[in-house]
Amino acid sequence: MILERLSGPPAAEGVAAEAQQLMRAMFPLCRSITGDGVRRTLDLVEKWTPLKRTEVPSGTALFDWEVPKEWNIRDAYVSDALDRRVVDFRQHNLHVVSYSIPVDRSMSLTELEPHLHSLPEHPDWIPYRTSYYREQWGFCVRHRDRMQFGPGPYRVVIDSDLAPGHLTYAEAVIEGRTSGEAIVYTHTCHPSLANDNLTGIAMAAALARELRGETPRLTWRFVFGPGTIGSLAWLSRNEKILPRISGGFVVGLLGDRGALTYKRSRNGASATDRIAEHVLRTSGCEHRTMDFEPYGYDERQFCSPGFDLPIGRLTRSANGAYPEYHTSADDLDLIRTDKLAESLTVLARMISVLDANRSLQSLSPRGEPRLGKRGLYGTLGGTAPSDMEHALLWVLNLADGKHDVVAMAARSGLPFELLDRAATALEDVQLVRSLDEQVAEPRRAAK
Amino acid sequence: MILERLSGPPAAEGVAAEAQQLMRAMFPLCRSITGDGVRRTLDLVEKWTPLKRTEVPSGTALFDWEVPKEWNIRDAYVSDALDRRVVDFRQHNLHVVSYSIPVDRSMSLTELEPHLHSLPEHPDWIPYRTSYYREQWGFCVRHRDRMQFGPGPYRVVIDSDLAPGHLTYAEAVIEGRTSGEAIVYTHTCHPSLANDNLTGIAMAAALARELRGETPRLTWRFVFGPGTIGSLAWLSRNEKILPRISGGFVVGLLGDRGALTYKRSRNGASATDRIAEHVLRTSGCEHRTMDFEPYGYDERQFCSPGFDLPIGRLTRSANGAYPEYHTSADDLDLIRTDKLAESLTVLARMISVLDANRSLQSLSPRGEPRLGKRGLYGTLGGTAPSDMEHALLWVLNLADGKHDVVAMAARSGLPFELLDRAATALEDVQLVRSLDEQVAEPRRAAK
Amino acid sequence: MILERLSGPPAAEGVAAEAQQLMRAMFPLCRSITGDGVRRTLDLVEKWTPLKRTEVPSGTALFDWEVPKEWNIRDAYVSDALDRRVVDFRQHNLHVVSYSIPVDRSMSLTELEPHLHSLPEHPDWIPYRTSYYREQWGFCVRHRDRMQFGPGPYRVVIDSDLAPGHLTYAEAVIEGRTSGEAIVYTHTCHPSLANDNLTGIAMAAALARELRGETPRLTWRFVFGPGTIGSLAWLSRNEKILPRISGGFVVGLLGDRGALTYKRSRNGASATDRIAEHVLRTSGCEHRTMDFEPYGYDERQFCSPGFDLPIGRLTRSANGAYPEYHTSADDLDLIRTDKLAESLTVLARMISVLDANRSLQSLSPRGEPRLGKRGLYGTLGGTAPSDMEHALLWVLNLADGKHDVVAMAARSGLPFELLDRAATALEDVQLVRSLDEQVAEPRRAAK
Repeated sequence: MILERLSGPPAAEGVAAEAQQLMRAMFPLCRSITGDGVRRTLDLVEKWTPLKRTEVPSGTALFDWEVPKEWNIRDAYVSDALDRRVVDFRQHNLHVVSYSIPVDRSMSLTELEPHLHSLPEHPDWIPYRTSYYREQWGFCVRHRDRMQFGPGPYRVVIDSDLAPGHLTYAEAVIEGRTSGEAIVYTHTCHPSLANDNLTGIAMAAALARELRGETPRLTWRFVFGPGTIGSLAWLSRNEKILPRISGGFVVGLLGDRGALTYKRSRNGASATDRIAEHVLRTSGCEHRTMDFEPYGYDERQFCSPGFDLPIGRLTRSANGAYPEYHTSADDLDLIRTDKLAESLTVLARMISVLDANRSLQSLSPRGEPRLGKRGLYGTLGGTAPSDMEHALLWVLNLADGKHDVVAMAARSGLPFELLDRAATALEDVQLVRSLDEQVAEPRRAAK
Repeated sequence: MILERLSGPPAAEGVAAEAQQLMRAMFPLCRSITGDGVRRTLDLVEKWTPLKRTEVPSGTALFDWEVPKEWNIRDAYVSDALDRRVVDFRQHNLHVVSYSIPVDRSMSLTELEPHLHSLPEHPDWIPYRTSYYREQWGFCVRHRDRMQFGPGPYRVVIDSDLAPGHLTYAEAVIEGRTSGEAIVYTHTCHPSLANDNLTGIAMAAALARELRGETPRLTWRFVFGPGTIGSLAWLSRNEKILPRISGGFVVGLLGDRGALTYKRSRNGASATDRIAEHVLRTSGCEHRTMDFEPYGYDERQFCSPGFDLPIGRLTRSANGAYPEYHTSADDLDLIRTDKLAESLTVLARMISVLDANRSLQSLSPRGEPRLGKRGLYGTLGGTAPSDMEHALLWVLNLADGKHDVVAMAARSGLPFELLDRAATALEDVQLVRSLDEQVAEPRRAAK
Repeated sequence: MILERLSGPPAAEGVAAEAQQLMRAMFPLCRSITGDGVRRTLDLVEKWTPLKRTEVPSGTALFDWEVPKEWNIRDAYVSDALDRRVVDFRQHNLHVVSYSIPVDRSMSLTELEPHLHSLPEHPDWIPYRTSYYREQWGFCVRHRDRMQFGPGPYRVVIDSDLAPGHLTYAEAVIEGRTSGEAIVYTHTCHPSLANDNLTGIAMAAALARELRGETPRLTWRFVFGPGTIGSLAWLSRNEKILPRISGGFVVGLLGDRGALTYKRSRNGASATDRIAEHVLRTSGCEHRTMDFEPYGYDERQFCSPGFDLPIGRLTRSANGAYPEYHTSADDLDLIRTDKLAESLTVLARMISVLDANRSLQSLSPRGEPRLGKRGLYGTLGGTAPSDMEHALLWVLNLADGKHDVVAMAARSGLPFELLDRAATALEDVQLVRSLDEQVAEPRRAAK
């Protein structure tokens, strides 16, 4: 099974500490759903793993949506009569509402007010606001500062471009031995927010780097793209592979102190769901499982009724469930190395089990085949069978094409890893075959 | 949604009080499964709502049954040697066993005894007895009176006709906008018994009258007919519409102090069942739900295996579960206006929800459609969606043709009414369509 | 229903006491998976019930297996320098590892040691060991004795044959009225062990003898054969009847003090499973139900994925769950007459219910048929129906071809026996027909 190196704390904590370095480098960049902030973020990820980048032109239809104009910003501020910047984008890129159109005007506080956003209940935090699909502009400020603003006049400058360009997403692709596919999607569109979602980007980068040295069964695609419009772009360009997707995860918000939280796919009992619950149940971690609901992150798109893919979501605190969510308080200090390492270990095991999971078909289904003559069974009767013998019998009995290995684990109570080894031993002596392997043939031929 | 006027106590209590007037007028009539008592009862109902009457001749085959002879009675008594009536049909029409054949003879008490029915445990109550399908005669008396009877001789007179005639049933039909059908069935065959079933007749009349001013989605048929043989007659004459029935209710016993009791259809998870349980659960009323069983009222026929219709039953105390059941103590004093009003409100809501319930199909199922450009969604990102936005997302996500609105309510935890409004908004912008509406086309064309 | 005589303790205890006599006669015989010990055991069974014997030649292919050589043993011992037998097959036939090849050699204790088996934790018990599929030899001894063995030399003699011959199994077949089939399988391959499995052989013999005087609905086959290879032999010779098998039981270990234990078939909800659980639940006995797992007795073969038959298993303590299991302490003293009688009563009822169970189809499914005109229903309305009337209504309502009688019992809460009588009454008046009866026609024609 793949990714075994990350199964224990020492390696996982080392990688988590490295990932925090990557997050530190990415933090200051001003990301949005398009623009150079995203491209420079991908440059940093590329130091960890090769990426295949896709640039989709503005105006391209993506199902019911279309790619918006590209947004880039150089500077923005509100300055007073003495030319002092009372709000300054150079201090924090959350100060500007994402996708704000260019402005350069003088105005009174009264005129400015409708364009200001602050949090009275958290007067020291800058809120995060966006306006992707309606052209407007605005500033986000600490409520404590806002209370000091005099009547003006103010000079209001946003030096941004909103113009035809491209949407950028990238994939780290690790080819598998079969035609099966799996994906890990993480959103790249948030500016200087650490948990949401530099943790997701860094964990995906780390897993892709680890996996590159291995030979997984499935082709794994780690996709780095903006929320909503990014997964729609990826889906629109990958419709041919969708039927071959065995499972996958939307990941993010992996470094806070909340319990690991798995959100089921729309199906609710997909292989991904059963695997995620099996891994969490046997992980010893504090965890929580929740039903699918049609809000959250990109699982909304993967699980829309026309796709209905077996893709769940792994976070710690889910969207909105921690007070710092979508404010300047979601910074690097919020991230805990031990929690990041725990997230990494659990996610690695989910990926590993999903990769190894397969449905099996017995090639000798009438009666139990004789394991003894194949060297797979003790020969002196009268004593209880070993764990491995139990696993062999379970795999043979449930190899009816309707059970995958994780279903065998659920029904037998035996560990997935033991059943996987038994299944492999039985494949080796041609007593069972993997139904999913078969799918691989035509694709290999096509290469 | 229809019948909203009855959703609150003030209107419902007003209608309940009116219904009690109607019950008072119906009470003295001697109903049975056939005969003029039924016709005169329908005359009174007709003051509330137009009726389509059907007269089915005696001898007509109804599946395994046939329409019996028509029974009418003018007078009946047992008089003593001094010509004093010791049992007198003019005092209470329960005194005669329903469908008693004519008699005019003198006899001793010994001869009379096998024809007498009384309740030793309730000596002041007259029992209710029938003998529709075996020709015999009998009297029902207070046990206290019976204990006074001397040895006779007695003159025994039953001035009745049992002769070829007709079975009478009637429907109040409110045409719907689609080809879907729903029915409310209530039995009309009980003589002077108030809860069972003047309450059912009066509630059905009230709901039909209310609904006449509205434009339901389904065609609603309020059917007034005798128990068993009446529903068989209706079924035999309406086989063409059975496949279009979305749901319905057998109703009766709606005015006593017992908890509202819903009995599931044979299917157990039909739309009607899920709706009834949703309405009860959110009603705040004391209530109870029971599984289908093949005894009770006309749900026995609707839920026989050859029909297996999605029709449940709403009563308060079910058959036999209150001591006054099928005795003279089930009189107008037993009926409580507040309970009648509560029954009316809940039944109106069940009808309203069943009428609005439909399966939806997304017309933009790949990815979430963009609600913002259709004016259905807030435009400033970063904050939590509103309840209406949640409802829109749920409807879109579950609009796969396999979920109806009440299933969406169950899965999302959102109120049916909110999801109905969201569904309607999405139908208006052509993001979803109702699968059930479609069914309407051929029928409209046929008109 | 069949086997009613065994439903109460007096008859069951009488038969249990007789069965213990049979066990006493069988106990000294040296059984194995082949050989004359099995044939002589069947001679004893034949005194209770006629048997159809099958001899399958060594080398015959049985799916993935083949029939091994036949093993017979005349004598075996280990003697010391003074010619004293320190291990003697004539004292207990467990002393020799089953299927030991012939030996006649002198050797030191050091050479002998790897061929000795004993139980340090139970120094007075002889273990039971076999080596069917690898040619070797060995002795099983009391650990206490083994501790006394000097350094040798010893003469080691096993006077056995391992040569081409036959595997022997036998069936007691009681023909049924329909083409349906059911089986009871018990293993015959254990030497002098009482609970495992002389109890199984004796109970099967007793039930076959009882059933011979009756006319079951199904054809019942009581199969006496060795474990694993015996059920494979039977399956390979009876493939044509497998589709007609309604259910059955693997039985054994029925006389110890443990709770009656039903192990579900692989399907988990087969008719056999639902029946066994219904019988246990209503038996008043201490009992336990366990899920299928692919180790145990011959249910492993019947429930392999290529057969997946509706066959469960009834034991008391299951394999390995009592300390005396597979040792010389599993002797006749372990067996309790009262437990044997309880096993017999419960097994008889499971057989009886399985035999009577059938799916029914209403011949008058639209509306309730009129029971009154067929003499099946009270005629004076107004009172509650009797238990039998309830049963008639339930059978009619669920006679949709998808419910068998045991499912009707589960849904209605009524006793199986009452529903069976109601079903028979409705079959008699041609209101329902048994779907399983139909299957009988072609087979009868073929006779």
